Amino acid sequence: MFIDRLIAGIRKYGNPSVAGLDPRLEYIPRGIREKAFRECGKGFAGASQAILEFNKKLIDALCDIVPAVKPQLAYYEMYGTEGIRVFAETCRYAKDRGMLVIADGKRNDIGSTAQAYSAAYLGKTEISGSLISAFDADALTVNPYLGVDGVKPFIDECASSDRGIFVLVKTSNRSSGQVQDLVTQDGRRVYEVVAELVDEWSAAAVGASGYSSIGAVVGATYPEQARILRKIMKRSYFLVPGYGAQGGTAQDAVCAFDDDGLGAVVNASRSIMCAWMTEEWSERYGEDGFDQAARNEAIRMREDLRCALESGK
Amino acid sequence: MFIDRLIAGIRKYGNPSVAGLDPRLEYIPRGIREKAFRECGKGFAGASQAILEFNKKLIDALCDIVPAVKPQLAYYEMYGTEGIRVFAETCRYAKDRGMLVIADGKRNDIGSTAQAYSAAYLGKTEISGSLISAFDADALTVNPYLGVDGVKPFIDECASSDRGIFVLVKTSNRSSGQVQDLVTQDGRRVYEVVAELVDEWSAAAVGASGYSSIGAVVGATYPEQARILRKIMKRSYFLVPGYGAQGGTAQDAVCAFDDDGLGAVVNASRSIMCAWMTEEWSERYGEDGFDQAARNEAIRMREDLRCALESGK
Repeated sequence: MFIDRLIAGIRKYGNPSVAGLDPRLEYIPRGIREKAFRECGKGFAGASQAILEFNKKLIDALCDIVPAVKPQLAYYEMYGTEGIRVFAETCRYAKDRGMLVIADGKRNDIGSTAQAYSAAYLGKTEISGSLISAFDADALTVNPYLGVDGVKPFIDECASSDRGIFVLVKTSNRSSGQVQDLVTQDGRRVYEVVAELVDEWSAAAVGASGYSSIGAVVGATYPEQARILRKIMKRSYFLVPGYGAQGGTAQDAVCAFDDDGLGAVVNASRSIMCAWMTEEWSERYGEDGFDQAARNEAIRMREDLRCALESGK
Repeated sequence: MFIDRLIAGIRKYGNPSVAGLDPRLEYIPRGIREKAFRECGKGFAGASQAILEFNKKLIDALCDIVPAVKPQLAYYEMYGTEGIRVFAETCRYAKDRGMLVIADGKRNDIGSTAQAYSAAYLGKTEISGSLISAFDADALTVNPYLGVDGVKPFIDECASSDRGIFVLVKTSNRSSGQVQDLVTQDGRRVYEVVAELVDEWSAAAVGASGYSSIGAVVGATYPEQARILRKIMKRSYFLVPGYGAQGGTAQDAVCAFDDDGLGAVVNASRSIMCAWMTEEWSERYGEDGFDQAARNEAIRMREDLRCALESGK
């Protein structure tokens, strides 16, 4: 089960966090960019090469302290086919280094099409009798706006293999309430109704840990809602974005956890990728030490979460 | 404006329909598949080559009667990087033949990431001062679950260039009501609240036609809801899936149109791609004539919609 593998990773490193790989070109040190542009040109090939180099060094620096990476598909799709090639290579590289890969694609569609997305990211694609993996991620983020039949193919994959999903319930962005916070006639908010669906779905893929491979996305920027949601989705692990650059604190993120210190993984993207640019780390590591700055920021984040978890909700 | 280009195409061919390109391997005649497998192997490269060949012939057969194609990203992503290469080539080929391309990706994320998706599909990606198009589609489908700040980057692109979006409002699938039909405290359904948001957003990109490049997805399988939504989103063009294989009829689809016969485009995927397999066309055209079968089915659909539009809602 995906969820047991995730929890094993979290326990191994004592670190309930995920490193987001959303590699904007401006986050990448000039030296790496210029080398890639010299070798592959100043187009998508060069940009993608720079991203791959950056990602690999980050993965090398993080793979023995952080259990999972979360590459955000948009930042690869914007470089076209070359970008997707690098997304695939990043997934492979991270898995080879022992990290779990959570593909952040927020995919959604009607059942037959959701089946194709599930094959693309979690399962295998059949080609005249052979089964081949396309991106072979460990987990995928999924948008629930279409209801159960758009999520079912992913659930089935999670139930029958070692893959997982995180369903968007309450997202970290400012306007998430426009749809998610609507109050329904019986007094429940839309995010609570979706949470109840996720709770129902989560029964299909419960691991030895008691947690399910059907998880939820709950933003660190909404700690009050996280507390409510923790009670509704007892079996679901929460993937918590919004820590760091988006304004969520460790104290906020802790609301997504259970009392035993499990139940959530907290993602940070910019704060880790761009650690080398900050006052705190830039002098010490410089541009070339961007990976060491990322490692130190990841350790700082781990300690930040540990302290907050110890002091309780 | 995208919307004026779409309406011009609809008027030119007297055909408010869109051909979905969701090319499952089993939809592709054996001859094309076997040739591609011989030339490129029985992996993703061979499968993708077969899809490209199939798509090109369909586009050739449809480009002077149907104004737009709608490739569904999932069916390309499932073949990995090779599949994405073929998605990009399909978009280019259709545009070269004068068709509009609506990329069906149902993308969604927080603002900064939505910006990256917008660059990938509608706008351009900046690489050290140069702007390059990744997939260069004319329009993209977008999921509204994250509220306005996840949609704003797409709206801005539509307002400042000739691109469009179709925001999911009421989808065609059976379980769409689980979230979309929830009744809020003031008696509005979630899809009505989203429709009001889309109506507000649509003001940013109104074309000479009076319609906006900010459109909506409204399934043909829910004609009653389409009637209500037509009144809420007066400026928005509706992209209507669910006709044909999913069970929606021309009579149902007509509810998405305005009284002047504009206001909607109806998508058909399987019924056009798989026309060659049906009793109606298989004897006449055989496997090799799959493109002519598709053309005839597209003409049949055009006439079906025309009749329904003439007899009114």
